Amino acid sequence: MSRLVMKFGGTSVGDVERIARAARLVAAERKPGRGLAVVVSAMSGETDRLVSLARGAAGEAGNGAPPPADDFNDEYDVVVAAGEQVTTGLLALALRRIGVPARSWQNWQVPIRTDDAHSKARVADIETTEIGRAIDAGEVAIVPGFQGVSGAGRVTTLGRGGSDTSAVALAAALKAERCDIYTDVDGVYTTDPRIVAKARRLEKISYEEMLEMASLGAKVLQTRSVELAFAQRVPVRVLSSFVEPGAHNPGTLVCSEEEIVEKQVVSGVAYSRDEAKVTLLGVEDHPGVAAEIFARLADANINVDMIVQAEARQPGRQNMVFTCPDRDAGRAVDAIDKVREKIGVEDIHVRRDVAKVSVIGIGMKSQVGVAKTMFAALAQKGVNIEAIATSEIKISVLIDAAYTELAVRALHTAYGLDAA
Amino acid sequence: MSRLVMKFGGTSVGDVERIARAARLVAAERKPGRGLAVVVSAMSGETDRLVSLARGAAGEAGNGAPPPADDFNDEYDVVVAAGEQVTTGLLALALRRIGVPARSWQNWQVPIRTDDAHSKARVADIETTEIGRAIDAGEVAIVPGFQGVSGAGRVTTLGRGGSDTSAVALAAALKAERCDIYTDVDGVYTTDPRIVAKARRLEKISYEEMLEMASLGAKVLQTRSVELAFAQRVPVRVLSSFVEPGAHNPGTLVCSEEEIVEKQVVSGVAYSRDEAKVTLLGVEDHPGVAAEIFARLADANINVDMIVQAEARQPGRQNMVFTCPDRDAGRAVDAIDKVREKIGVEDIHVRRDVAKVSVIGIGMKSQVGVAKTMFAALAQKGVNIEAIATSEIKISVLIDAAYTELAVRALHTAYGLDAA
Repeated sequence: MSRLVMKFGGTSVGDVERIARAARLVAAERKPGRGLAVVVSAMSGETDRLVSLARGAAGEAGNGAPPPADDFNDEYDVVVAAGEQVTTGLLALALRRIGVPARSWQNWQVPIRTDDAHSKARVADIETTEIGRAIDAGEVAIVPGFQGVSGAGRVTTLGRGGSDTSAVALAAALKAERCDIYTDVDGVYTTDPRIVAKARRLEKISYEEMLEMASLGAKVLQTRSVELAFAQRVPVRVLSSFVEPGAHNPGTLVCSEEEIVEKQVVSGVAYSRDEAKVTLLGVEDHPGVAAEIFARLADANINVDMIVQAEARQPGRQNMVFTCPDRDAGRAVDAIDKVREKIGVEDIHVRRDVAKVSVIGIGMKSQVGVAKTMFAALAQKGVNIEAIATSEIKISVLIDAAYTELAVRALHTAYGLDAA
Repeated sequence: MSRLVMKFGGTSVGDVERIARAARLVAAERKPGRGLAVVVSAMSGETDRLVSLARGAAGEAGNGAPPPADDFNDEYDVVVAAGEQVTTGLLALALRRIGVPARSWQNWQVPIRTDDAHSKARVADIETTEIGRAIDAGEVAIVPGFQGVSGAGRVTTLGRGGSDTSAVALAAALKAERCDIYTDVDGVYTTDPRIVAKARRLEKISYEEMLEMASLGAKVLQTRSVELAFAQRVPVRVLSSFVEPGAHNPGTLVCSEEEIVEKQVVSGVAYSRDEAKVTLLGVEDHPGVAAEIFARLADANINVDMIVQAEARQPGRQNMVFTCPDRDAGRAVDAIDKVREKIGVEDIHVRRDVAKVSVIGIGMKSQVGVAKTMFAALAQKGVNIEAIATSEIKISVLIDAAYTELAVRALHTAYGLDAA
């Protein structure tokens, strides 16, 4: 008996017609000896509507306001989780309509157990005895994504985009052969096709590359779902829900490095505009100063990305540069301001019109000259590099945001990624 | 320790502002030594939206189409039950916002156990140990109306209007002092105030009277909820949710006959326009004919109300008259047609422009001359009576629908119900 988990995102179940098409895609995957489970998101727009109602009831301002206080999160979860419940029932009805045995399994019926961290819970354990028996008997099981039930027996949600994580967790628990994520794009691309017309769909990408792609701003899969797939070795396929069954729809397989025979030096180019560069000028140059700075930033819950330290012109002084998400820049400055005297910062500059561009490739591990190609390609276009960060499988540079598209296109060509 | 159950209908929680007012009404009922549970409906319009989605997914036509087939009802319930879940969370948030400890309890968390009759389930048992402990400790418990969980562990719904029944069932299980039903009217009236400007709000009404009022077309409380309140002796108060706490809002108490000291001969006048009169002319007059007719109608699931049998002009023949809901008249004729030969029906007439007007009063049991007053009042206005039906506490007449308002007003005056 093999098992397959399929997942449909919000736009893929956005109305009754799309739900009917999702049902046909599910029906096409049925075959003897294979059990099917389907994870669904709320219909597109529905989660926003419910969040807005919850905020209204809790007395929060409209969108853009901070999320409800922690002691409101349990009921916020109750409100928002209703969205996926509706979709499970609708997809079950649509499947039965075309003669496919199906039923919904709510979070407490499976059950999908999570920790107690309301609105950002993590899946702890999925009980698969009953649901596994049902799918092995040929009945399609439809499960709401994004939610679970806590140890205290309350409804929890996993946070935005958590449906991908639900799907991968269910696939791992069911020991499924694969987890197919149906979405509004037909796969993972070498870069953003809106910027580079010659971007190519990748046949395969390794978990590690996908993790870098996801966290660097390619919004196809939620980062946590990729981490989980990597940890549990669940092959994940990303493919389009906007085609009829039988049409050409290979998608992109996210899998172990070992399964990718021909490893690209660079598989993709990612970018993020949500960056700010903070420069601390004339910081005292003695042990403990960096620790003091980054401890303050960590206390303020600011996710620091690149860090560059350079000598200043004055002896005994240095300049410290770091990047963080643009929305956190103001808070970062406030956090530093508190210890400004103590560590002797002469001045703080914030630059918000910066972007991070990265090249990612598992083949980089065993290849030299990758950085050289990058810097040369950027230099040739007159793009100035403000900061550099590297990992085993990626090189990121911080540049003036105005050059983002130019840089992405130049790098896409330089690494031979352009489609023929 | 006393306990109170409050219930808010769809219009009373129709938007965030109304939910905030419902929260204030709940807060006003808190006092030491009293536990509060609140049953909520879906926000007005929400159930219709969800039903329409479910019908779309199941391939049913729009509104007006028959409900989904029986083997779709389980998932229809999953979809529709989400509406009340949302309201429970929103009301909990609104209560916490004003400093009142509150939490939602979903159908499976209480649990509220029902039978397995999806979309028309009946409450079997409510487990009150945990929820009772919570409310006695001062935390308001918010429970979704209209739903429960079956023996098989699936979501069930009680059918339209089932939230009243949920509230009464919860009040009975919690041994509450009373069940307060907050709605868009401020009580039960002697008759429809849209027809009779002098209609009066009743301070008290007996369960039996309310049952007759409810089933005869006064749409304040769902009939099943009154039956349950009667059987379990739960006092039910109907009152307005459209006033602020502290305002004059006595409502109407539905209670045992014994608690009503001054029993009115007639407490109210009800009417229904959803009636059709079916006349079978020249039916053979021998034993078993009536049984044959009404067996056919029962098989067709037609709710026959009044029945009048009269001799026809021809010897050995009789005329049989019955009434049924207007929407069932066509099916009633079809059902009779099948046995027309067998029982010798000469002709079938259907009259759809008829209305049923009823006077109801617990005092009727011990009073003579009630019918005389009715017939005299109608005769004086020239209203012809087409059929009569009586029970211990009501007299109903079938009349030409054009005279409905005239008849209701005449009877309201004749029994001394007009407000001063």
